[in-house]
Amino acid sequence: MLPDSSDIMALCRRRGFIWPSFEVYGGVAGMFDYGPLGCILKNNIVGVWRSIYRGEEKFLEIDSETINPRDVFKASGHVDGFADLITYCQKCQTPFRADHLVEGFCKNPDTLTPKQLEDTFVEHNVKCPECGGNLGQISEFNLMFKTSIGPGSTRTGYLRPETAQGIFVNYLNLYRYNREKLPFGVIQIGKSYRNEIAPRQGMLRMREFSQMEAELFIDPENKDWPKFKEVENEELDLIPNTTLELTTMTVGEAVEKGVIANRVLAYFVYVTKQFLTIIGVDPKRLRFREHEKDEMAHYATDCWDAEVLLSYGWVEIVGIADRGCWDLSRHAQFSGQDMTHFRRYDSPKEVEVSRVKAKSKAIGPRFKGRAKDIISAIESLKPEDVRDGKVFICVDNEKIELDDEFFEVISIKEKIAGDRVIPHVIEPSHGLDRILYSVLEHAYEHDNEENYTTLNLRPVVAPIKVGVFPLMAKDGLDEVAHKIYTDVCASGMEAYYDDSGTIGKRYARMDEIGTPWCITVDYETIEDGLNRGTVTIRDRNTKGQKRVQIKDIEKILERLLSGEIFDIL
Amino acid sequence: MLPDSSDIMALCRRRGFIWPSFEVYGGVAGMFDYGPLGCILKNNIVGVWRSIYRGEEKFLEIDSETINPRDVFKASGHVDGFADLITYCQKCQTPFRADHLVEGFCKNPDTLTPKQLEDTFVEHNVKCPECGGNLGQISEFNLMFKTSIGPGSTRTGYLRPETAQGIFVNYLNLYRYNREKLPFGVIQIGKSYRNEIAPRQGMLRMREFSQMEAELFIDPENKDWPKFKEVENEELDLIPNTTLELTTMTVGEAVEKGVIANRVLAYFVYVTKQFLTIIGVDPKRLRFREHEKDEMAHYATDCWDAEVLLSYGWVEIVGIADRGCWDLSRHAQFSGQDMTHFRRYDSPKEVEVSRVKAKSKAIGPRFKGRAKDIISAIESLKPEDVRDGKVFICVDNEKIELDDEFFEVISIKEKIAGDRVIPHVIEPSHGLDRILYSVLEHAYEHDNEENYTTLNLRPVVAPIKVGVFPLMAKDGLDEVAHKIYTDVCASGMEAYYDDSGTIGKRYARMDEIGTPWCITVDYETIEDGLNRGTVTIRDRNTKGQKRVQIKDIEKILERLLSGEIFDIL
Repeated sequence: MLPDSSDIMALCRRRGFIWPSFEVYGGVAGMFDYGPLGCILKNNIVGVWRSIYRGEEKFLEIDSETINPRDVFKASGHVDGFADLITYCQKCQTPFRADHLVEGFCKNPDTLTPKQLEDTFVEHNVKCPECGGNLGQISEFNLMFKTSIGPGSTRTGYLRPETAQGIFVNYLNLYRYNREKLPFGVIQIGKSYRNEIAPRQGMLRMREFSQMEAELFIDPENKDWPKFKEVENEELDLIPNTTLELTTMTVGEAVEKGVIANRVLAYFVYVTKQFLTIIGVDPKRLRFREHEKDEMAHYATDCWDAEVLLSYGWVEIVGIADRGCWDLSRHAQFSGQDMTHFRRYDSPKEVEVSRVKAKSKAIGPRFKGRAKDIISAIESLKPEDVRDGKVFICVDNEKIELDDEFFEVISIKEKIAGDRVIPHVIEPSHGLDRILYSVLEHAYEHDNEENYTTLNLRPVVAPIKVGVFPLMAKDGLDEVAHKIYTDVCASGMEAYYDDSGTIGKRYARMDEIGTPWCITVDYETIEDGLNRGTVTIRDRNTKGQKRVQIKDIEKILERLLSGEIFDIL
Repeated sequence: MLPDSSDIMALCRRRGFIWPSFEVYGGVAGMFDYGPLGCILKNNIVGVWRSIYRGEEKFLEIDSETINPRDVFKASGHVDGFADLITYCQKCQTPFRADHLVEGFCKNPDTLTPKQLEDTFVEHNVKCPECGGNLGQISEFNLMFKTSIGPGSTRTGYLRPETAQGIFVNYLNLYRYNREKLPFGVIQIGKSYRNEIAPRQGMLRMREFSQMEAELFIDPENKDWPKFKEVENEELDLIPNTTLELTTMTVGEAVEKGVIANRVLAYFVYVTKQFLTIIGVDPKRLRFREHEKDEMAHYATDCWDAEVLLSYGWVEIVGIADRGCWDLSRHAQFSGQDMTHFRRYDSPKEVEVSRVKAKSKAIGPRFKGRAKDIISAIESLKPEDVRDGKVFICVDNEKIELDDEFFEVISIKEKIAGDRVIPHVIEPSHGLDRILYSVLEHAYEHDNEENYTTLNLRPVVAPIKVGVFPLMAKDGLDEVAHKIYTDVCASGMEAYYDDSGTIGKRYARMDEIGTPWCITVDYETIEDGLNRGTVTIRDRNTKGQKRVQIKDIEKILERLLSGEIFDIL
């Protein structure tokens, strides 16, 4: 049976993972703070992600501003197109997301137009869920938080709705940093903001949230990836938009059969699976669903969502898209900057090109001494400068109109060393808070009979790696335990010292927050003196215990944490 | 000679440390993005700070929202008091910070009132520096970025001007997490925002910036710190507000002589010095200046700024304050929540208290059967309920006025187990961007004769630890170098592979970004086969080189990085 999200949120709150924000002031919907354990868990997840993208894939990392001037989101399309449809109750004035009100009446309500939604309201007699009042007109509500930069309210700024734009806006800087070579990838980890109309579903729809986004800039004609062959035989659970049915196939097959558009996209779909599995998402509750055709952005070549099964149903937590040349084209257009890449051919290519050629024989007699300048001016024109069979040239500050008596457009063969292309973008985009919530829900285990909760967090993400307890807080047991605690901390592992309550209660407290191991100092420990003594080490999953030498603790914990050994027994 | 900030910013820009934000759209003053090297440098500084505050001092860490509802900043005082004085040129409409316009005419212009500033304008005939026009009236400009939460613009939100409030607002959650014990410390690392009127001085005054703030909650009557004795003999360069003169004294002396208000504050002043020194701030260009009396917040008991000498002059980069009970008192008052701590005495204390006592002899005859209820009602009153020698009680829904014929206020001795106090707050608050800039400026060294720039970054913060070069990108040298590069990366160290240009140019590129060591694979390397071969390792500071075995590289780098050995030679 799937756990209920309210059980998990209650645990998060009680134990200091996640707290609703500003609770002492009544709270704000869709806003959550990370408490001490949540903060470490979040940083641990970020650490794993960074070790993959920056460590293994050698992506660059940047950190850009969250407030952006309007220009940026005008170019990205967010000023004009990033809105939900809103309606207010005409009686109680409560605002609603219009599509939420017709769920159950139609499929994919978020794809309906205002007119279609209004028709659905009428057809199904939809009223305000709060007071039964009539619903007003449907309009667009832009989801970006708006502010002004500087005094005088003259410069509009928005809080970024995604971290990606900070990378695109810095593209030229990054391209130069990478010595003008392709491909290269860039990541950014940070806050993004969406001013949701009526947030619900706990941590799945937050107004302020964290993203981990990666943007890979790649030659549009070479969508391969060097490490593809290392993963081509690995399996993926896919729902292609052609069949809408779950199919298991290898990464290699998915590309060969045209299910995933290209190798680099397929590679990062697999990297996503790997990342999510490492941090503890249950692979049996993970699938990749291709966007349906009406769901996919018009510019995207292909787009896959990593979906996990939660108590809310299947939820998207990562999107992996081939965004084509959209992002850079738009910023090039709006900023007037050249964002192309010069792609040098292996050897120069002979290509047929159109050129404007002067007819010297007609020009000479007519323009005499100026003929040379006229010819040069004509031949610097491009074929598209010819309009209605005429061209304008400018010689000695005189504008001269010439018809095709004086020039012709010819086709010639030329050798060129390369061409200019706008790089395409492959984007794995991660919703960090949703991922963290999924990790918690997949780790959550509650024994109803015993009324006992265990979080089976993977050691790599568990906020506390080791609980250290003296059996009794006396007879020197506490001093020995405290020394062990200090040593474990000094080795860089997060530990928790606890000497209050029965030992059973202390184990239970650690199980509930996902601590994989506990060390207990008992009377046997002090029998032989501190450095030759032994302690018990207990495993969260098996509840098994083993006596080990104090001097071996650090080595054992390191081997357990690195995964070199899986079990203390 | 101090370097010029423009040289450093030019280097930052050229080499990918820091880029002015949104440059392709013309930029926005006071906004900067961290490029790949800047981002690693920043994360490395955060890492050192976290290892001190979370690792050594065992502070908790949280991560709270950057958008806050108005209530929070009403309580904190920012809605009413967080403003700069602004004036607009009446001719060209340019906005100015009024105090900036009178610099040079008076001391501490930021402490002047609007009236005083206006008088100074008149006295010195201050005009618009842009166009010479007359300056308009001076008014307050609140520095918080404002937005609305949710649709309908009904709920005002602000971007936080400091991370600290997120900790105070969560105080009750944190207090419970810490099992209702004092002292405990909490840190937060994140973005803060100040909508500066006219940002200048590069990275010193950013509209969006990062803070690392620590809030230590402590018993107001026990401002000691267990580790104080470990640091009491360490020296500090202090400018007390009594003498305004630089004095060097030990941490212990500073407390004994009453220069720093208490032990815990002095301890964290020293921790700040230690932190800044570890990351590479030059201790000879670092001092601690006490706020002058008119500069200190009215609620602060004592406040010290860590100031560093930069090309801009002495600049505050950390503030360490004893904020008294201000923060929690305000939030308790505005939220109506009890934020006190029950302080249990070591043994119950006998204290003299005032009580209202009924005079039974007078009450009996007068009130007969109701006497018992009357007596009980009187004795539940507090001494402050007595007004003008009279009290009101309520018995059986009847309001009764009684004069001192029927009661008396007496002094008695009582045993009490403890009392309730509002914890005090010690706050070390760090401006991360300013700190990072200071590290860069103190590391910057330019040889004018050779036109050669070296960043002497400490290895612990250097973004790239090792450059790895094949002498020539052929004859298998490149393969060996690439293998070494991959191995160094796998060991968790940031490395940079470079095979283009002369070896001298490659060293120069690494020196300029502060890479402490370079490894070069040359023809001697491949003489004896890969695993027995040797490479040269070069030290940035001495430019010295040494041949080492390939198999020893990892061990040597680890020992260099940990500081176990300081020199390759």
